[in-house]
Amino acid sequence: MKKQASYKSVVSDKWLVNSKNLPKGFWAEGIACGIKRKDKKDLALFYSQVPAKAVGVFTANQVKSAPVVVSKEQLAKSDGVRAIITNSGCANACTGTRGLNDAKEMCNLTARLLGLKPGSVLVASTGVIGRYLPMPKIRQGIKNLVTNFLHCSIAPSLNYSETAVEAIMTTDTFPKIVSKKIFLPSLNPNPYPLIPVSIWSCAKGAGMIHPDLATLLCFILTDIAIDRRLLEKALKTAVNQSFNCITVDGETSTNDTVFLLANGLAGNQPIKKEDNNFRKFQNVLNKVTLDLAKMVTKDGEGATKLVKIVVKNARNSQEAKKVAKAIALSPLVKTAFFGADPNWGRIIGAIGHSGVKIIPEKIDLYFDNLSVTHKGIPIVGIEKKARKILQQKEFNVFVDLNQGKTKGEIYTCDLSLEYVKINSAYST
Amino acid sequence: MKKQASYKSVVSDKWLVNSKNLPKGFWAEGIACGIKRKDKKDLALFYSQVPAKAVGVFTANQVKSAPVVVSKEQLAKSDGVRAIITNSGCANACTGTRGLNDAKEMCNLTARLLGLKPGSVLVASTGVIGRYLPMPKIRQGIKNLVTNFLHCSIAPSLNYSETAVEAIMTTDTFPKIVSKKIFLPSLNPNPYPLIPVSIWSCAKGAGMIHPDLATLLCFILTDIAIDRRLLEKALKTAVNQSFNCITVDGETSTNDTVFLLANGLAGNQPIKKEDNNFRKFQNVLNKVTLDLAKMVTKDGEGATKLVKIVVKNARNSQEAKKVAKAIALSPLVKTAFFGADPNWGRIIGAIGHSGVKIIPEKIDLYFDNLSVTHKGIPIVGIEKKARKILQQKEFNVFVDLNQGKTKGEIYTCDLSLEYVKINSAYST
Repeated sequence: MKKQASYKSVVSDKWLVNSKNLPKGFWAEGIACGIKRKDKKDLALFYSQVPAKAVGVFTANQVKSAPVVVSKEQLAKSDGVRAIITNSGCANACTGTRGLNDAKEMCNLTARLLGLKPGSVLVASTGVIGRYLPMPKIRQGIKNLVTNFLHCSIAPSLNYSETAVEAIMTTDTFPKIVSKKIFLPSLNPNPYPLIPVSIWSCAKGAGMIHPDLATLLCFILTDIAIDRRLLEKALKTAVNQSFNCITVDGETSTNDTVFLLANGLAGNQPIKKEDNNFRKFQNVLNKVTLDLAKMVTKDGEGATKLVKIVVKNARNSQEAKKVAKAIALSPLVKTAFFGADPNWGRIIGAIGHSGVKIIPEKIDLYFDNLSVTHKGIPIVGIEKKARKILQQKEFNVFVDLNQGKTKGEIYTCDLSLEYVKINSAYST
Repeated sequence: MKKQASYKSVVSDKWLVNSKNLPKGFWAEGIACGIKRKDKKDLALFYSQVPAKAVGVFTANQVKSAPVVVSKEQLAKSDGVRAIITNSGCANACTGTRGLNDAKEMCNLTARLLGLKPGSVLVASTGVIGRYLPMPKIRQGIKNLVTNFLHCSIAPSLNYSETAVEAIMTTDTFPKIVSKKIFLPSLNPNPYPLIPVSIWSCAKGAGMIHPDLATLLCFILTDIAIDRRLLEKALKTAVNQSFNCITVDGETSTNDTVFLLANGLAGNQPIKKEDNNFRKFQNVLNKVTLDLAKMVTKDGEGATKLVKIVVKNARNSQEAKKVAKAIALSPLVKTAFFGADPNWGRIIGAIGHSGVKIIPEKIDLYFDNLSVTHKGIPIVGIEKKARKILQQKEFNVFVDLNQGKTKGEIYTCDLSLEYVKINSAYST
């Protein structure tokens, strides 16, 4: 107890209620510290007034960036998270011991300047792999962020959360923020038995997006009071039905990170078991993450279309998803989407080499409600209608395997000229 | 014997020795029969003066085109192949019973007009999936081809094999022909103990190219005398080290077909066991197929570069190839190749999610002879040199996993704007 007291915040309590989007007790800002060119924002600080319960999900890539390694360690031993320090423009991946030290320094410097306990700060980076962080710029940037924060803590109504979201963007064309409220039983039921609980979230995506995990940084902040174990369960469930169901290019990044911080300041009766209140929270968390996932897919590098692939009547959900992924990843299917070319043979081709045992003569295929293939052979004369559907900004592809009862879904985007343009000159 | 006699060829024996490229006793021609637009060649006939031993390798896709199904059947029961009838512009895949009947009719009509035994004609198609063949055009085309052939059989020096290769092209930008000779012991050693044996081969590729099998049609014609069992073994070995080692876009087509026909007219002592002569033949067959495979990769849709990915010191060859494939298929790596962007982090990223257990801290990476990563961390200051290497039309990427002793290779190409342009409007 004594030790904890020595890390008393240097910040006043005045701005505890943030009047705008962020949940109670959270603050965020992003600035340009010089990692990127042209004064683009590239460093952000997320802060919680009190220690937040924190859980995370990280990349499935065996090559893990330094911030992923460091944050995983912090989460494992932390009894409360107070801040996230995050940058874009440099992934700090494949950078060995020096990279690990840099990531740790980002955490420690932030903690020291804010008067926080070491180990209460998480770190996340995104950008080019294989380069060292420009630490002098980052050190100065962190100092500036903390100074700004100390000023803001006197004027709590200032909300810079959008600048923080901008600062984690790479090839994203728009900042991705989703924020929702639910009402839960209050700790003090008089005069109001229900009080609002906020869930605010942001993400950056664009390239290297693929299930397990879709490449991204995603930070979810909430003021709910909830057990850490349940928070972890809720995040895993939410990620499984959202970020693990989207693909842009089949790439898995070294830096994928989802953080969920719950600081408990909403004033709800703490959730301690999987009751109706937990389910309410789970539902809204599912919605928030799915909305973000769809935004990420829609804003896939160069994407002009959001396509939902639904595979029905598979033998099991693993096979349903495998078939959906094979379609969602096929460059020939994705370029056909881009050109609104109803060349559905490519979809059948992708299904046939998905690795799932299928019966070609049983497959039905639909674009939205339009039947294009029945029992594996073409419906003639539907080209014009099919083309119209594929010209839409959003449409669905339904595949009926007719060999079981299970469904699987995945969101994908088209493969455009812009994807190639962006990615042939990214690091330069 | 009597039955066989009733299928006596309608063709004279005069042109038995083809003076140009094709091996002895082979003839080929391609024409435009109207499947494609603008008088583009789309139908070809390959003919052997005597029954040839024939073997084939077909697509690994579960969705197999009608010609693949029909040719597989023919090969299984045939005691000698006399002709291949083949078209481009329509794959005759996903076309059900009607498609099977069309493929059979192509074989039967060709056999009847040439006075050949039914079952001695193979068929192969390539083009858009999910459309029926325009049979009236194809029937007329076959008649025209046979007429041309009958004329040519009077003037044997005419060689139309290049037109036949043109007729199987889809988005290929050049016809792919490789032809080689070896000398083997003669059946009649006086006056020459060694006589020339020819191996002529052609392929079409371009899109839907991926190991098992690289999408393509490939016809290999040789006048060698050899046992069918050995012919089959030789083809499998050759395909494994060539077409199964290239990728353009990770797609596996429904129509992949490699035929190898050996009509035995060279006059060599028939090869009946795996002796030196067999090894000579195997070597040249390996070279021929690898040359074709490299041409196919180089001419991958929109490709501007041919890249060899070599993975060294893996634990076993399966893992070596899996890592090589993950790199060769990564759209981020391939777009970086296109832009000559030395963004090697993407290669490390691809290795990390290849599904092979690796040790990131052990990985060395080279572009040609330039070391870009040592033990998983960057070599600084090599960007300019690296860019120069990636600007070449052909270069190598070496990955040293440092965890075993086995090597694996794969050829790939870059992912260019042209790939997207071609494939967003292919069926239209």
